[in-house]
Amino acid sequence: MIDTLNIFTTLLPEGPLPNGLTPDGPLAGTSFAAKDLYDVAGHVTLAGSKINADDGKVAAQDATLVARLRAAGSRLVGMTNMDEYAYGFATENSHYGTTRNPHDPARIAGGSSGGSAAAVAAGLVDIALGSDTNGSIRVPASLCGVYGLKPTFGRLSRAGVYPFVHSLDHAGLFARSPAMLAAAYDAMQGPDPRDPAQGQRPVEPTGFTPEMPPLRVGVLGGFFAAGAAPEAHAALAHVADGLTGLGCSIAPALLNGASQARSAAFCMTAMEGGSLHRADLMTRPMDFDPAVRDRMLAGLLMPADLLLAARRVRRIVADQARALFADFDLLLSPATPCSAPRIGEATIEIEGQQVPVRANLGMFCQPISFIGLPAISVPALADTPLPIGVQMIAPAWAEARLIDAAHHLHRAGITGTTGPTP
Amino acid sequence: MIDTLNIFTTLLPEGPLPNGLTPDGPLAGTSFAAKDLYDVAGHVTLAGSKINADDGKVAAQDATLVARLRAAGSRLVGMTNMDEYAYGFATENSHYGTTRNPHDPARIAGGSSGGSAAAVAAGLVDIALGSDTNGSIRVPASLCGVYGLKPTFGRLSRAGVYPFVHSLDHAGLFARSPAMLAAAYDAMQGPDPRDPAQGQRPVEPTGFTPEMPPLRVGVLGGFFAAGAAPEAHAALAHVADGLTGLGCSIAPALLNGASQARSAAFCMTAMEGGSLHRADLMTRPMDFDPAVRDRMLAGLLMPADLLLAARRVRRIVADQARALFADFDLLLSPATPCSAPRIGEATIEIEGQQVPVRANLGMFCQPISFIGLPAISVPALADTPLPIGVQMIAPAWAEARLIDAAHHLHRAGITGTTGPTP
Repeated sequence: MIDTLNIFTTLLPEGPLPNGLTPDGPLAGTSFAAKDLYDVAGHVTLAGSKINADDGKVAAQDATLVARLRAAGSRLVGMTNMDEYAYGFATENSHYGTTRNPHDPARIAGGSSGGSAAAVAAGLVDIALGSDTNGSIRVPASLCGVYGLKPTFGRLSRAGVYPFVHSLDHAGLFARSPAMLAAAYDAMQGPDPRDPAQGQRPVEPTGFTPEMPPLRVGVLGGFFAAGAAPEAHAALAHVADGLTGLGCSIAPALLNGASQARSAAFCMTAMEGGSLHRADLMTRPMDFDPAVRDRMLAGLLMPADLLLAARRVRRIVADQARALFADFDLLLSPATPCSAPRIGEATIEIEGQQVPVRANLGMFCQPISFIGLPAISVPALADTPLPIGVQMIAPAWAEARLIDAAHHLHRAGITGTTGPTP
Repeated sequence: MIDTLNIFTTLLPEGPLPNGLTPDGPLAGTSFAAKDLYDVAGHVTLAGSKINADDGKVAAQDATLVARLRAAGSRLVGMTNMDEYAYGFATENSHYGTTRNPHDPARIAGGSSGGSAAAVAAGLVDIALGSDTNGSIRVPASLCGVYGLKPTFGRLSRAGVYPFVHSLDHAGLFARSPAMLAAAYDAMQGPDPRDPAQGQRPVEPTGFTPEMPPLRVGVLGGFFAAGAAPEAHAALAHVADGLTGLGCSIAPALLNGASQARSAAFCMTAMEGGSLHRADLMTRPMDFDPAVRDRMLAGLLMPADLLLAARRVRRIVADQARALFADFDLLLSPATPCSAPRIGEATIEIEGQQVPVRANLGMFCQPISFIGLPAISVPALADTPLPIGVQMIAPAWAEARLIDAAHHLHRAGITGTTGPTP
């Protein structure tokens, strides 16, 4: 495989299946890639960093989700590129280069799980594992035009996943169809004694309804309606119209405190991320990616009062969301404020303003991961030059509702993958 | 009642029982007092502060534990003095005065639940509610010579309890006998929808074993064996010998990280306490008790990294304790490093060193509340001029084991109340 898009950090040789597994099981015949922060036995988990490469610590066992996909019969093809330590929305990595977007190699794939999203979009694998702390699955899914699921906080095991922000890290995945997404997700669900912070929910198989249920769908306004480019608005309207056509009711919805939640998520990320890497930041700061280093150092200077205030914001906004789901079954927003920016582009123009790319790509994702709700980015088949996703959000533990809705949208040709996919 | 010991901040008039309750139920005929951070309907919850008095906010309903004791037939006599906002081990309050020790009015009662411990020790009530964040039940129980139980973190509802450190606050209680303690504790157990942070454990009635079970008892060494005055060592040896006589096995035990846990608890307390009171500290700092103000302001200056480090210490030490309980059923340490100091005494001499009273009275309690384990201070009937307690510690949710052991010690005359108790 010639990796012209710089998707992989490690490609595994074809070889016998580990542990004598034979390729049967629900995922037999499929292949997958793992973001290079999932442990793969016998390999160094780079997490996009030079530091981990230098340290050379080899994983003794597979991350739980890698092991579960393998046990279900899927073949691991390789590990994928990412922003260093998962801190970014661009997969522009100063050590391992920039991952290119399969739909236009002059554009970014989004991040931090950019390699995984691009691997699926390019048709190199069927399934890819990612992680999402502030939008790191939903952003590259949107820019690469694939389905990307960030389940409820604590649903999927993080055992063997290199941490970034303990309070916000979610494990999740990409696929080109909701059916494949569901099969892979179902193979990974369930309690894991190796992850004490996991929700320990029993397996709740996804299952598809024969017809689209008549969901009450809320289109998020306020914070979620401002600051998006025309293609994001077009994609959202396209999916909302599609859901109406499938029998859903659509009404405007407001999540109070979303802007504050985003600010709090920014601060919490810098503080927890900085604290996690404190020792290296003190002793070998120049080994970090510059963009990551500066934000983590800033996080180390922030007062505890700010972290505690962020936690209070989280509780308040989570309560707001819970109340909102009394009136709605599903919420919609753009997944990203625009489609994929060009590589190296520092700002994008939105509503006449030049705003920084890196900070703003995740703006609509951050408030949702901050309060732990499950969300999926679905690739809208709207009339836009490049792919762009719509974020669908459900109450805690209602992943099945999200995947089922995506399935009906996909079947109706309202969402789906295009372009370079074979 | 003439409150010569300055125990009460509010004495309630005798009157009809609220809500038409008749005095039956398991606690009929008993009386209780509540630390003045428990809401009592129709009264301002002072929490030992001038600020709350000035604000004059009247509680609309009883704290859950107050309501449950009343529902079980106990009569609320009044609200008791405490360190301002529960931040201290002395009940030397610059607004409401110092609570005196019933065993020697020239000495402190300990804190922060000093009024509650003194009320029970003086025989003014049968039961008293306290709160324990770093030792605020166990310290005054030790100095006043009564039983003081700090249950597992999250066991008893904190609904209607004025907060101090959300991560560390425990509700608990005092009594003169383990039987009374058990009856009151059982009346208060159980899930409370008003407290979302509660452990939501079902009621597990205490029940006493006919004979002392042959427990494997560990006497904590290391951190817990240094820095204590002779009377603390005498009390500990007395209780350990008593347990041996009752058929238990005794062996030395080590809780690694206890000193770090104590440091982390200090920092977390200042940071969370400061953050909670931030608005008042910014706008009316001189309305605080000086000792409280300075520590909370310091907490506001501490970096988030320190809070996160403290949380990591907590996880590590909690794991150490869990491992220790594979070998032991019960752990022992002194409850306080000395018996009650004189009022105004700034330092105490321990092992030839003058150390500050206020900071050190809780030194053996702090590591245990920090990791949320249930603990009881039992009043040793050792040959000491003043009462002093021994701390018994159990695994999470094993309060019944603690109270049962205390019951057998009490019945055997190894622990118990003396002196001013009628």
